[in-house]
Amino acid sequence: MSKPQKIIPQLPRGMRDHLPDELVPRMQVVERIRRIFELYGFQPLETPALERLEILSGKSGEESDKLTFRVMKRGAELERALEEVRRGAAPDELADLGLRYEFTVSLARVMAQYGDRLPKPFKRYQIGPVWRADRPQHGRYREFIQCDVDIVGTDSRLADAELIALMSEVFTDLGLDDIEIQVNHRGLLRALNGACGNPPGKFADFCTALDKMANVGRDGVEQEMRMRDLATDRLSQLWDFGQQVTDKSRSSFANALADWLGQITDQFILREPGVYESISTDIKNIQDVRGSAIYLGAQPEKVILNPFLARGLDYYTGPVFEAVLPQAGVGSLGGGGRYDDLIGLFTRTRIPATGTSFGLERIVDIMLERGLLPPSRSVAQVSVLQLAAGGEAVEFAGVILKFLRNAGVPCEVSYHADVKLAKHIQAAVKRGNSFVVFIGSDELGEYEKMKGGAPAELPIVAKRLADGVQRRLSLAEFAQWLPGE
Amino acid sequence: MSKPQKIIPQLPRGMRDHLPDELVPRMQVVERIRRIFELYGFQPLETPALERLEILSGKSGEESDKLTFRVMKRGAELERALEEVRRGAAPDELADLGLRYEFTVSLARVMAQYGDRLPKPFKRYQIGPVWRADRPQHGRYREFIQCDVDIVGTDSRLADAELIALMSEVFTDLGLDDIEIQVNHRGLLRALNGACGNPPGKFADFCTALDKMANVGRDGVEQEMRMRDLATDRLSQLWDFGQQVTDKSRSSFANALADWLGQITDQFILREPGVYESISTDIKNIQDVRGSAIYLGAQPEKVILNPFLARGLDYYTGPVFEAVLPQAGVGSLGGGGRYDDLIGLFTRTRIPATGTSFGLERIVDIMLERGLLPPSRSVAQVSVLQLAAGGEAVEFAGVILKFLRNAGVPCEVSYHADVKLAKHIQAAVKRGNSFVVFIGSDELGEYEKMKGGAPAELPIVAKRLADGVQRRLSLAEFAQWLPGE
Repeated sequence: MSKPQKIIPQLPRGMRDHLPDELVPRMQVVERIRRIFELYGFQPLETPALERLEILSGKSGEESDKLTFRVMKRGAELERALEEVRRGAAPDELADLGLRYEFTVSLARVMAQYGDRLPKPFKRYQIGPVWRADRPQHGRYREFIQCDVDIVGTDSRLADAELIALMSEVFTDLGLDDIEIQVNHRGLLRALNGACGNPPGKFADFCTALDKMANVGRDGVEQEMRMRDLATDRLSQLWDFGQQVTDKSRSSFANALADWLGQITDQFILREPGVYESISTDIKNIQDVRGSAIYLGAQPEKVILNPFLARGLDYYTGPVFEAVLPQAGVGSLGGGGRYDDLIGLFTRTRIPATGTSFGLERIVDIMLERGLLPPSRSVAQVSVLQLAAGGEAVEFAGVILKFLRNAGVPCEVSYHADVKLAKHIQAAVKRGNSFVVFIGSDELGEYEKMKGGAPAELPIVAKRLADGVQRRLSLAEFAQWLPGE
Repeated sequence: MSKPQKIIPQLPRGMRDHLPDELVPRMQVVERIRRIFELYGFQPLETPALERLEILSGKSGEESDKLTFRVMKRGAELERALEEVRRGAAPDELADLGLRYEFTVSLARVMAQYGDRLPKPFKRYQIGPVWRADRPQHGRYREFIQCDVDIVGTDSRLADAELIALMSEVFTDLGLDDIEIQVNHRGLLRALNGACGNPPGKFADFCTALDKMANVGRDGVEQEMRMRDLATDRLSQLWDFGQQVTDKSRSSFANALADWLGQITDQFILREPGVYESISTDIKNIQDVRGSAIYLGAQPEKVILNPFLARGLDYYTGPVFEAVLPQAGVGSLGGGGRYDDLIGLFTRTRIPATGTSFGLERIVDIMLERGLLPPSRSVAQVSVLQLAAGGEAVEFAGVILKFLRNAGVPCEVSYHADVKLAKHIQAAVKRGNSFVVFIGSDELGEYEKMKGGAPAELPIVAKRLADGVQRRLSLAEFAQWLPGE
């Protein structure tokens, strides 16, 4: 076979491989999250990685368009599109599919296609990769795992509360006890937008600017607001107000909300009619949501009010929430909110929904940093070392492996008999095995005599690699010597 | 909010959603396969869904090029490429990434990038989606799950044998006891190609034609051979030979191999020098592999010789194997073989490797057909029904839910109190819950009195939906009433 042409082995920009040592603990975190999703009655859903481009851009247009990896048409369709592009048409014609950049738009499509078949409300989780053609940054990747839970088809505040309780439970289970779940309501933000002197049409800009707080701080947000032609003359008042409310919410959530209402009506001018009533309703809503979340298991001191919490995306319509570790300075570990106008996108009906998402990458990073993930070991706990060649040695190895696997012990066999013992052991250490079992000519002799009896009683010689302790014992005794999971 | 434009909710052609009822058993099969991979000491690896196009086409060129979904360049690079295409350049310029159509080329890249850091031999598994821009057919999708195990860095026959033992164990564990693992050796096929009167340069065509046997039968293969300019005058002799050898291998594998050698030297003319020696070596090899596979746990009667087994792909160099259910007529459920010249693709060194793959889609289909997968039920076993409104009812629900979740019971709460009992129960049945717990005003009154005590002793009223049996009992007693997993 002729040598193939040399190609430089490299990854696409912003993407990663997960080698076993790093992947094993990562998978454990995913499994723990999945377990809690299921304990809360969420059902799994899987949708294709690719969606038709008109589905992907159905939601929000511009921003998502920039994020989408586009897949080129194929065959005759590509030929036709190329013809048009050569004649000057826009390059959009060349692609028909795109990689999903999140799960929500696919969920909206699923509800439109199979809504009748699904239980109502539909509580689903989806865990899997999404792709974003973002500029890669430290800790931000172009392919990453998203863990979403959503409750579709109810406007009950209990559903929002359940998500907050679930978030609290997930982070507590993962050992991130200092998690804080900040909550807010889009209606309150809307009032704040008005109180700052911005027209309702500027609300999306206002949210986008505020959303950058955690990354760029107050000065950065102010700069962003100027850039977006938002009013900035009352900002120092606004920052003070926000800090006070947040602080107060740590000792009394209800008082913080009362403060919010008092301050906004005293210090800011509410221009639009009906705003006071609308704010009162939203305040009642968020207070109920928090109260129920606590009944359902969230820890009271962990659910606080952040009146600036915006959750960038346009589509939120009610309560929003976000999980942060105030001490760690890593930004959001997850969050979500109610979005009542999005799921009906493809049906032209209003389907209320609420959901939240967990940021696996940041969760794993912080858990590793804090030593909350056990170091990965080789998958195979035991390696059976062939020191004698021939079919008999393989037969003996087979008996040992079968016995251990039946006992649930991951194990493997060395492939070559023509290797020195010291090399064998070195390789086992490098592989991360914890124990080795020897099959040399002495052991084979013993096996010959005992063959055909109960495997549990077969004598073997095993060594624990951590301390070099070597023992001659029966297979059953060996299985007991192994530490449990 | 203005109503968005109507978009038709549909999937990309050849792709699927997996709704919970179908996904849950599917996930169980994946987990059972994964568990056995790990019991055999294979470690997980994850690579990005996207690879650079030059990596993807590094392996085989044409065929893989046709299968690849290509991702368009972005930003300024796309602009430049468009300029060139408008001036007449080939459209290849427009794409830089592609969706993986299998895992092997990514494994070769991983070995080139991190070979030094990985244990040797490297035993890895990868389970995940791959994408192929094939013509969609019944039971063939453009996105499907591939489950691969490979052993990289050893030419030991034990490694090939271990894969056959693993295949046998996976299918037995899944309850597909009538699985047959057909084995062959590329060297024997090569000799067969010569014996039929084809030059060595026609070997790939010969394999491709034979590989279609399961789908199109002998006549189809013969037609394919004519199309590919292969010799066909000795085919009836060849078919008889193949059938005899396969049949004999069911009673004696060794005799079948002896027959193979005898017949090929007697009936066919071997033109090339050294062929007899080479065949003898290959025969010894495949006999050893099968023998070791049986020592390692494969059932002897299930490993048979199929002298026509080719495994389409060009890159196999030694033993090949394939799992089939002779009675079911569904084609291959998985297979693989040794490929010693591929993994070194990016390093220009020879890195021997052997691997096998499991066809999840067909496995799940046949298991469903045979009733081997339990029907899926709702993830939440218990639904707590609010029949009384107010914070107190939510508090009581929270206590019940927490108790059950701590006991590992998936459960949920109904979101609305203003629903009639009959409707509540109807909804729970539709959701697939097995039990409901009532929180009405009587139950709340009881809760009031007991509040603050041990949750285990709280009295509740629960109904088993399957038979309508309703009981008043403590939470602890209720947990014992629930059937275990």
